[in-house]
Amino acid sequence: MKQAIVLTGITTTGTPHLGNYVGAIRPAIAASKDPDVLPFYFLADYHALIKCQEPARVSLSTLEIAATWLALGLDTENAVFYRQSDIPEIAELCWLLGCVTAKGLMNRSHAYKAALQTNEENGENDPDKGVTMGLFNYPILMAADILMFNANRVPVGKDQIQHIEMARDIAGRFNHIYGEHFTLPEPEITEETAILSGLDGRKMSKSYDNTIPLFIEEKQLRKLIMKIKTNSLEPGAPKDPDTCTLFSIYKAFAGREQTLALRKRYEEGIGWGEMKQFLFEHLNEHLHSARERYDALIQTPEKIEDILQTGAEKARRYSQPFMQKIRAATGIRKLV
Amino acid sequence: MKQAIVLTGITTTGTPHLGNYVGAIRPAIAASKDPDVLPFYFLADYHALIKCQEPARVSLSTLEIAATWLALGLDTENAVFYRQSDIPEIAELCWLLGCVTAKGLMNRSHAYKAALQTNEENGENDPDKGVTMGLFNYPILMAADILMFNANRVPVGKDQIQHIEMARDIAGRFNHIYGEHFTLPEPEITEETAILSGLDGRKMSKSYDNTIPLFIEEKQLRKLIMKIKTNSLEPGAPKDPDTCTLFSIYKAFAGREQTLALRKRYEEGIGWGEMKQFLFEHLNEHLHSARERYDALIQTPEKIEDILQTGAEKARRYSQPFMQKIRAATGIRKLV
Repeated sequence: MKQAIVLTGITTTGTPHLGNYVGAIRPAIAASKDPDVLPFYFLADYHALIKCQEPARVSLSTLEIAATWLALGLDTENAVFYRQSDIPEIAELCWLLGCVTAKGLMNRSHAYKAALQTNEENGENDPDKGVTMGLFNYPILMAADILMFNANRVPVGKDQIQHIEMARDIAGRFNHIYGEHFTLPEPEITEETAILSGLDGRKMSKSYDNTIPLFIEEKQLRKLIMKIKTNSLEPGAPKDPDTCTLFSIYKAFAGREQTLALRKRYEEGIGWGEMKQFLFEHLNEHLHSARERYDALIQTPEKIEDILQTGAEKARRYSQPFMQKIRAATGIRKLV
Repeated sequence: MKQAIVLTGITTTGTPHLGNYVGAIRPAIAASKDPDVLPFYFLADYHALIKCQEPARVSLSTLEIAATWLALGLDTENAVFYRQSDIPEIAELCWLLGCVTAKGLMNRSHAYKAALQTNEENGENDPDKGVTMGLFNYPILMAADILMFNANRVPVGKDQIQHIEMARDIAGRFNHIYGEHFTLPEPEITEETAILSGLDGRKMSKSYDNTIPLFIEEKQLRKLIMKIKTNSLEPGAPKDPDTCTLFSIYKAFAGREQTLALRKRYEEGIGWGEMKQFLFEHLNEHLHSARERYDALIQTPEKIEDILQTGAEKARRYSQPFMQKIRAATGIRKLV
């Protein structure tokens, strides 16, 4: 049986945090070990430029994300791991797809409509204020990322389902005009349970500035855990694990037995200080050896670059001949 | 003194006709001989896909346009003559520029607004009906074409001035965010007098289906000239040269003395049949040897392809290192 192509992009604008790990990186690396799957995982730097105009951040984030995935054991023998901008066919496909994409489809994109709504709420006269063409074209670039490799499945959160539908729409339109070239991708909905709480109890997210970086130095990790918001119950008073950020983080890094044991200690009234120390030690134990690999990788960027270049070569073994076909289908052909 | 870079794109959707020759090709080839100018002339096949979804036509048009310019004496030792799609950096730059382009700017594009107006006039509910993202993004691709080579001047008709202004806007915005990388291009307005009338007396244009192809076979050329609309004045009756399509075409291919002499024959009442034969002979004489070169070129597409590949190599000597710089400026860099 042919392997199913599963494709995931990681936007290179931030430093990976515990929430990214639990919600995206860990499941993706686990999925990449499935022999029935051929994973295409890429550093989405063209996407990064949509929301980040700080060159140093984009560049550092690329290094940190690549080092993170490798330190956590991504098997690059199996997975195709590459940087989006190393595949020039993607930007070209993006243009070709745009020529068959109705503007009306983009008008309906959630990301764009959210921007319109914010402007309206702020009483702006110009509904498009602050909207760039990068944001407006974003679903077309995402379609190019997916269709370039005829990906079968794209793991997404619920908020991203629409973009997969748009990629299917665009693929269908191209196929209708120029012949059957593109596979229609299926969204693979990732579970909501994988969402981790951050320092302030809200969803851990860069935009809330409440994250715990994944490979932060040991002392810093302890310090951040000590800062996690709790209620004011005294040691000895029974506590509710299900509304507790500390518990939710522990649970994401523990087995069923361990989780049940900790639940019992909450009933028995574990103190917040003790619990924080316990969580720190548990996390540190869990992350320790990967952190060492990460630190070593960060010190040897040339090794990471080599791996990315090998990944780009593998990816271009697909994208180059395929783009040749796509180009020819539209009439862009050599004269002989 | 450094040569000024003058850039012109030719959309590959049709067969060159007398109007293209007089209005665009002839002046561009003449300008290319100016030693102070470095001409970049390219076959705009990505642009072609915006308005033409017939692969065979795009492909044939590419051949015909390239053969035309070469048959008419474009000096490819001096001019950089290439196919847009052979320069992968252009699609990539298009994406990068989109990320700094306000959507509001594109909303104001004449081409887009004309489509909105047509929909409104037709009573369409959806103002964006029939508008593709290719059309909406078109000024960004044009900016990428121009800025890729830091062109100083872009010859355009009056209706295209806005697109040069947009390219300047986008370049300025990028320079502001990422440092001074792009030269702001100047429009070079082409004269209105260079507009030729077609078979029906309206401006010769593919969209009116009233063209005389430039290198049509001799018999066909005669046949089309015989079909040009005139009034019903008899031979011997004085005629007005200034409202006559035949005269306007002749004038575009004749010197001052010849034009004055013909003007006199109009006063003397030249018959339409005689005038048509006269125009045919004059045009045929003028086009004869270029047509022979054209026919030979069309028979040897491999030669044209070689010339285009050499042109692409020349163009990429600029675009590759420049794009490297542009990419790095945005944060898209190798890790070492």
